[in-house]
Amino acid sequence: MSDPQRTYAVTHADIAAAAARIAPHVLRTPVIPAHAVSGLAGREVAFKCESMQRTGSFKIRGATNAVRSIADRDATRGVVTHSSGNHALALATAAAERGMPAHVVMPANASPTKRAAVERAGAAVVTSGNSGAEREAAAAEVQARTGATMVPPFDHPWVIAGQGTIALELLEQLPEAATLVVPVGGGGMISGIAIAARGVRPDIRIVGAEPELAGDAEESKRTGRISPQRPPVTIADGLRTALGELTFPVVRDLVDSIALVSEDEIIAAMRLVFLQERLVIEPSAAVGVAAILAGRVGGPLDRPTVCVLCGGNADLARLPWLTAG
Amino acid sequence: MSDPQRTYAVTHADIAAAAARIAPHVLRTPVIPAHAVSGLAGREVAFKCESMQRTGSFKIRGATNAVRSIADRDATRGVVTHSSGNHALALATAAAERGMPAHVVMPANASPTKRAAVERAGAAVVTSGNSGAEREAAAAEVQARTGATMVPPFDHPWVIAGQGTIALELLEQLPEAATLVVPVGGGGMISGIAIAARGVRPDIRIVGAEPELAGDAEESKRTGRISPQRPPVTIADGLRTALGELTFPVVRDLVDSIALVSEDEIIAAMRLVFLQERLVIEPSAAVGVAAILAGRVGGPLDRPTVCVLCGGNADLARLPWLTAG
Repeated sequence: MSDPQRTYAVTHADIAAAAARIAPHVLRTPVIPAHAVSGLAGREVAFKCESMQRTGSFKIRGATNAVRSIADRDATRGVVTHSSGNHALALATAAAERGMPAHVVMPANASPTKRAAVERAGAAVVTSGNSGAEREAAAAEVQARTGATMVPPFDHPWVIAGQGTIALELLEQLPEAATLVVPVGGGGMISGIAIAARGVRPDIRIVGAEPELAGDAEESKRTGRISPQRPPVTIADGLRTALGELTFPVVRDLVDSIALVSEDEIIAAMRLVFLQERLVIEPSAAVGVAAILAGRVGGPLDRPTVCVLCGGNADLARLPWLTAG
Repeated sequence: MSDPQRTYAVTHADIAAAAARIAPHVLRTPVIPAHAVSGLAGREVAFKCESMQRTGSFKIRGATNAVRSIADRDATRGVVTHSSGNHALALATAAAERGMPAHVVMPANASPTKRAAVERAGAAVVTSGNSGAEREAAAAEVQARTGATMVPPFDHPWVIAGQGTIALELLEQLPEAATLVVPVGGGGMISGIAIAARGVRPDIRIVGAEPELAGDAEESKRTGRISPQRPPVTIADGLRTALGELTFPVVRDLVDSIALVSEDEIIAAMRLVFLQERLVIEPSAAVGVAAILAGRVGGPLDRPTVCVLCGGNADLARLPWLTAG
């Protein structure tokens, strides 16, 4: 394994600094035993409930770290980003709390619930095409026009460092955790977590979880170069993007493996978490649970496995196991 | 205030014994900060998540204490009860775990979801009329026929003692709790909690929460005699029953007040808990939250208020704020 203190976009010290910076603005989310999942999986599983985080996802960590890292002289011009939803809401919220304008490019296929929440948080929303390239182009146009600081959804040191604070917090709450299961979209969360966790516990196992229909990160790790985004069809709408230039090396070097799960497995896991663990989660958060239930995570069965529930912004009017599809 | 060690159906020592008896069979449920509710209510609120308890409600505590208190010579004839749902599932589960038959009388208007769960747990279900009297008569008939031990849903020392273990556990988890908010149906939970909590912390404030449409306990406390059950129309289907002979004196003497909430307030509170606290709860559990949000709980605002989320067996296909009614 490479030395995370030297090689990657952020260091363990950057993440520790981010934790101090964002502490007044984010929640220390609970770690809850997942009794039903533990029983079914035959291993002790706990949830790190970023689903209960402010704005309903872990994204407020990276967004707040970014917003609070911008120099005063740049702050009045605001921030801009592109996002399928949770990063958008997080950045809009973090910017409003610092009194900064926020411009958010959202793809046309973003959840209406999430779009409405971003608008309520005070951001100006610009609609783009659904591909990563279209979203990035629209964001670049807004940036050129306004002079706002770009805060991309994952491939930025401020963002990666903010997301990594999840692991510092978790390892204070459950120091004996042996395996961390982390959903992978653009890789911001798993990169930050991998650097932070290995800085504290070099032997910890980090396992990504990804929808088969968006299995680009698994492919990237396997082939050694960044695979492009797949068609954005998985129900796990937070995990559709490809890895970035900063997140890929971390996933390549510091993540033990990436488990793939089917859409049916995601929906079944989401249903189980609602009905048996009594937690509201969004499909992206069910991906890690599905990987554990499918037995694709590995690691010691007799030491705790922690699954990061990355978000709770579910559309309760269209719970996927209750709808025709 | 009367001395709970002398006057009531159970003592603090009974509840401590119940806690030891049931510990191998029930979960120590999490206490979770309720950030959104705290912000709206202007006081620090935490949830005691019996919604995450085995069988989805606190009822497994009393049921397990009862089942494990039955003498061996009586055990083979099984147990019988009547219940709107959660006690039924709990007793069926507890009996199955001791290898005992269970007969469960359920009213015709019980939730189909709950009835199916009781049958899956292995109990024989008998359908009765919806009133408390009809349910009790049907249960008495089954008892006469089978010789099973009656485990009523609330008005029994074994059951009250089992439910009281919630408070012992909670005061270990959050010793600084100043106010406990507890939904009231038949009063088994609040009676047990009041005796247990006052045994540890004589100054603690115990507040009941009840639907206006089932406000018989508030009326009973106010008038000094047990008011009959109201028509069973509140959405909070776990709270429709009247107080019992054993629970009424405890509610009269050891409960500070009972807050009433409207159906709209219950539904709005349930929605808030799903959307902002990201917890799955049933309507009965939202009643306490509604009382806090309506400002009807009293007690010090600068010390923690704990709301018992009594159950999580919601019908997710018919979430009340999403349906026409």
